[in-house]
Amino acid sequence: MINNRAIDKTDWNASSIDETLSMVRDEVDKVLSASPRIIREYTAHLTKSTGKYIRGVSLLTCAIDKEGAIHKDAIRFAAAIELVHLATLVHDDVIDNAELRRGELSLQKKYGKRTAVICGDYLLCAALMLAGDASDKEEYLKFDMPKHLSRVVLGELQQHINNANFDLSVHRYLKIISGKTAALFEAAFYAGSILSETDQRIIRKYSNLGRYIGMIFQLTDDCMDFETTEHVAKKPVQSDYEQNVITLPLIHAFRTLAGFKEKAATSGLKREEINEAVRKAGGLIYTRSLAKKYYMKSLKILEELELSQEKHLRLSSILNSAYRVF
Amino acid sequence: MINNRAIDKTDWNASSIDETLSMVRDEVDKVLSASPRIIREYTAHLTKSTGKYIRGVSLLTCAIDKEGAIHKDAIRFAAAIELVHLATLVHDDVIDNAELRRGELSLQKKYGKRTAVICGDYLLCAALMLAGDASDKEEYLKFDMPKHLSRVVLGELQQHINNANFDLSVHRYLKIISGKTAALFEAAFYAGSILSETDQRIIRKYSNLGRYIGMIFQLTDDCMDFETTEHVAKKPVQSDYEQNVITLPLIHAFRTLAGFKEKAATSGLKREEINEAVRKAGGLIYTRSLAKKYYMKSLKILEELELSQEKHLRLSSILNSAYRVF
Repeated sequence: MINNRAIDKTDWNASSIDETLSMVRDEVDKVLSASPRIIREYTAHLTKSTGKYIRGVSLLTCAIDKEGAIHKDAIRFAAAIELVHLATLVHDDVIDNAELRRGELSLQKKYGKRTAVICGDYLLCAALMLAGDASDKEEYLKFDMPKHLSRVVLGELQQHINNANFDLSVHRYLKIISGKTAALFEAAFYAGSILSETDQRIIRKYSNLGRYIGMIFQLTDDCMDFETTEHVAKKPVQSDYEQNVITLPLIHAFRTLAGFKEKAATSGLKREEINEAVRKAGGLIYTRSLAKKYYMKSLKILEELELSQEKHLRLSSILNSAYRVF
Repeated sequence: MINNRAIDKTDWNASSIDETLSMVRDEVDKVLSASPRIIREYTAHLTKSTGKYIRGVSLLTCAIDKEGAIHKDAIRFAAAIELVHLATLVHDDVIDNAELRRGELSLQKKYGKRTAVICGDYLLCAALMLAGDASDKEEYLKFDMPKHLSRVVLGELQQHINNANFDLSVHRYLKIISGKTAALFEAAFYAGSILSETDQRIIRKYSNLGRYIGMIFQLTDDCMDFETTEHVAKKPVQSDYEQNVITLPLIHAFRTLAGFKEKAATSGLKREEINEAVRKAGGLIYTRSLAKKYYMKSLKILEELELSQEKHLRLSSILNSAYRVF
């Protein structure tokens, strides 16, 4: 039977959002550490280093309702979205042949690609099962995880197809990251907001805010690959190009420095040449200026949403984290 | 809103099951041929050779109700289960490094492992989205595809872990195929029966029947790897062992022929040695005798179900196909 929404609302107060987040972490840990015995060794490896749960936090925050309470299904949804994120990372690492993930050996490096493909599939199932356990089935159906997930998958494919494509346009690049990264942020904001709002126009605003924040996050991440150290990023830096991933700072250098693209195509590029070209072209400044556009759009939505002070503060904090560095 | 079941029932008569099946094929083809442009080339490749839709046919058949009609959601569910099956095949081929699938180049062989991982993920999403479009959301929720899918995935993992394991017991082998193959047949029978039945005990019987038929299908397939030609099977034969997959005929030879397992472990086996050992040990007779046990259990359930003559005939036909060769 479909549960009546009213039954399961207002279980937590928003002031205890940190406590709620720790319940999300517990849910994720339970899936990873208490998975069926046959797969436990592999999924348990993923508990060694956890992410920052920025998507989970986003979902919980959007789920804060007008009375300052959080629908209890927000915990399952947030855990599910973190598990989907983890599943895509596991498959990404297979696709990119990545050795490190969150400072630990990637699953594919430690156990092989075959195991990693299967584990990614299992994590997707686990995420869907967890969300499906929601007490409020109407909200679960509205959430429609497969739709969001398919956008993420298509974004991955777009990126993969455009590996080492020196002709990649800014427009197409933005479409790629809109799928690859922003779609899951959008899903988090959307799923949170359907638990706190009923007005479709308002839910649409939350979704857009999530997508913009996802764009900002990815563009900032692109810059970090040039700016930061492996120690800070907890993942390889100066590595996008080496993995044939052409990001915006480099795209900007390709389209502004005469002869640079041709050189890349004919004789390849050394790391120092890339860094020098991106510096000369102002690739990071350009990328950050685009991030700023999304930042300004986000601020506008934040004002339109007429949020409580608490919720406004928390969403601003997420936005600012994305804009600087998480 | 959750649709009332009564609205959407009795749309097709069971006598037109072939017509209904062709609608299932159309749904699957639509997903593969009209997928987003970025992925269409790859998914369209999968339309070049289609399977026998035995899972889809099973689902439709189980969905025939007492009045001889088929719930219209059966079409979406059947298409979804065929797409899930296709997704697992695409990922399987990545895992097994298979070159051929249904007589055509496998996706991973033609386009690479990376693309195949992503396409498998996309097909899973597409399957879930299609099932989620069901007019009757209650039935969709009951279907619970992720749960069934997770059993398939865990079966794959079990098989992978036991690659080249010469100590694999009969018991464990049956557990592996119970996940890897039988779980999806069970899902098809289960999903069909929830559209035609309400009594949980009867639905349970359908599920069991599906699982038994899946076991029979896999055990027969194991024998075919020894008996048939590539032309007949439309896939490589005499190949399980070469892919490190130890199946029941060989397990039986390992446990009955003195010194044979030790020989395999120390110096490996040539194809002729395997065939000779399986013949000598009666590995195919043993495997078929186990299939027969499941066949007898299936017959018992078919009697218990008190089916119409039409439905009995159709389910018997599916059972007999699995027991011989599809």
